[in-house]
Amino acid sequence: MSESLEDEACNDEIHPPRPTFAAPPEDVLENAALMLSAAGDPARLRLLLRLADGERCVTELAEAEGEKLATVSARLKLLHGARLVTRRREAKHVHYSLTDGHIVSLVRDILEHAAEDTVSI
Amino acid sequence: MSESLEDEACNDEIHPPRPTFAAPPEDVLENAALMLSAAGDPARLRLLLRLADGERCVTELAEAEGEKLATVSARLKLLHGARLVTRRREAKHVHYSLTDGHIVSLVRDILEHAAEDTVSI
Repeated sequence: MSESLEDEACNDEIHPPRPTFAAPPEDVLENAALMLSAAGDPARLRLLLRLADGERCVTELAEAEGEKLATVSARLKLLHGARLVTRRREAKHVHYSLTDGHIVSLVRDILEHAAEDTVSI
Repeated sequence: MSESLEDEACNDEIHPPRPTFAAPPEDVLENAALMLSAAGDPARLRLLLRLADGERCVTELAEAEGEKLATVSARLKLLHGARLVTRRREAKHVHYSLTDGHIVSLVRDILEHAAEDTVSI
């Protein structure tokens, strides 16, 4: 392709009016970025995807993943730190769930998008 | 709180049957994780949020952000590399858009979740 896609200034053209952008507060943006970053790892993302099906306890997640309890537990703790998952204790179990419907949507949307994208490349 | 939330094995309890988990292929998971990781930065996330309102050219994004063209251009290139945004050239402009509706949903969901979460902590 002979035409460059390098970005250039565009001062000589007037844009149509744009709607006012309501920037979120910086702490909200940082919080959201932390959540995305915590989810942005294949092993952690697969755990989130498993939890999108419903609450699971750590032991069954570790068995399903074929990983050590400590490994899966560490990943869950990182996801919990970013508040993508909640946990509750019941007897000897620690049960994890996705925090709410936003996280379920997020996980499913990104996987659907990635599946389409991966097929097309 | 006296009760520890440390994870423990739970071999002595039987879980109810779980639905079969359809794990996505590893390359799809990796692609999705790359996208989340690219979005997981406050400055890049703010650009995605601006693009959720519609197509924008690089210069107007740089002006809106109060940043140098080169800075914003570099962020957009990273987002383009993760295929979160598409671009098209028209005369001297390079216009960026979110790749599709999944990315619009993703950006809005995570910000909404983070806003609720940030208020509540």
